[in-house]
Amino acid sequence: MIRGRVMGEVWATKKAPRLAGRKLILVAETCITAGAERPTGRVVVATDLLDAARGDTVVVAFGSGARNAECPGSRDVLVDAAVVQIVDGSSTPGAD
Amino acid sequence: MIRGRVMGEVWATKKAPRLAGRKLILVAETCITAGAERPTGRVVVATDLLDAARGDTVVVAFGSGARNAECPGSRDVLVDAAVVQIVDGSSTPGAD
Amino acid sequence: MIRGRVMGEVWATKKAPRLAGRKLILVAETCITAGAERPTGRVVVATDLLDAARGDTVVVAFGSGARNAECPGSRDVLVDAAVVQIVDGSSTPGAD
Amino acid sequence: MIRGRVMGEVWATKKAPRLAGRKLILVAETCITAGAERPTGRVVVATDLLDAARGDTVVVAFGSGARNAECPGSRDVLVDAAVVQIVDGSSTPGAD
Amino acid sequence: MIRGRVMGEVWATKKAPRLAGRKLILVAETCITAGAERPTGRVVVATDLLDAARGDTVVVAFGSGARNAECPGSRDVLVDAAVVQIVDGSSTPGAD
Repeated sequence: MIRGRVMGEVWATKKAPRLAGRKLILVAETCITAGAERPTGRVVVATDLLDAARGDTVVVAFGSGARNAECPGSRDVLVDAAVVQIVDGSSTPGAD
Repeated sequence: MIRGRVMGEVWATKKAPRLAGRKLILVAETCITAGAERPTGRVVVATDLLDAARGDTVVVAFGSGARNAECPGSRDVLVDAAVVQIVDGSSTPGAD
Repeated sequence: MIRGRVMGEVWATKKAPRLAGRKLILVAETCITAGAERPTGRVVVATDLLDAARGDTVVVAFGSGARNAECPGSRDVLVDAAVVQIVDGSSTPGAD
Repeated sequence: MIRGRVMGEVWATKKAPRLAGRKLILVAETCITAGAERPTGRVVVATDLLDAARGDTVVVAFGSGARNAECPGSRDVLVDAAVVQIVDGSSTPGAD
Repeated sequence: MIRGRVMGEVWATKKAPRLAGRKLILVAETCITAGAERPTGRVVVATDLLDAARGDTVVVAFGSGARNAECPGSRDVLVDAAVVQIVDGSSTPGAD
């Protein structure tokens, strides 16, 4: 899993049928350098069942972890990244 | 999933038999820096069932997500990346 | 698997139900340059069943390796990264 | 999948038994900057059933995609990367 | 799969029970620039059933490839990276 900040929502009319009705958001991965949180430059597109808002710090799971966040035990979910936590805080200085 | 821009199509006469008839495109991953969309330098090759055109911003899914975009529930699909959305817009400034 | 240092714990009230009760930690991946251990800038979020403390050097497994660390043979675990070792030492100078 | 150039073959006498008889090649991933194809610095080791020659531009599939290129539907293939196309051309300037 | 050089072994007393008895090594990924092999800065932790020595050039497989190197067809192996070849040579200048 990675930690990142929510940048906003993406929308589309042309999409794989199995994505219909899903909220997709852009998340900018972050790291901590010298006590300050910074973007790494990597941006992922994830589904969001937790209703994260722009600017929230979130944890994103990938692969089967994301499938299981969407639908436990399912094998045919299309998404490969999902928000699994909206972070309240951490014990790392500068990390929230 | 990642977001990127369609660079063009690749073609081949020598290929794995199970790729026959599939359209493969090059997608340049993008990030947003200072409100402007820029390529990260990573380029992926993805199948395209949505008929994306050069210059389109798309969302690409990987692994089992891509397999399920091609054929839900299938275990023997060869591709590991597939276009799952042609992006109309987003709530992130500079992201479209 | 990667090796990294524990930066601290993350907590959240809003999370995927299947993450309830799990300890999640931030791990900064490290490499060795000129005999000294340095962070690569990549930070992962992993579950921790071994009770690692801040500053510990740990080994993190991903994907099905992480699922099997959580629950062997299970197919519906949500996490995609798990601490599988707290490193005591290594035969690489500067690596501990 | 990624696109790259074939650098050459690797050989070994000491190997996992299930790799016996397989041709393994080194592929340098490429991107396109300012219309020119350049190596990204990432090198992957892939199996090659298509008999690619040094200097060829190829498409490499990973994970289950690679397993299915080797043996469709199989679950116990050892390789995680396989050449699935030898590229003839593309609609991207400078990409061949 | 990637190619890299063996840096040394890591050991631990506190580990996931299913890792007991396994040898874990650090492998520094390498690329070739201007005919010379160089580390990319990425370091992976892999199991080693081939008894690789420090300084050896090896091929490392990931994910299900690594699981199948450990135990063919198994679904509950904890490791996600395994040495599958000790490289004798290659047809790429500067690559051994």
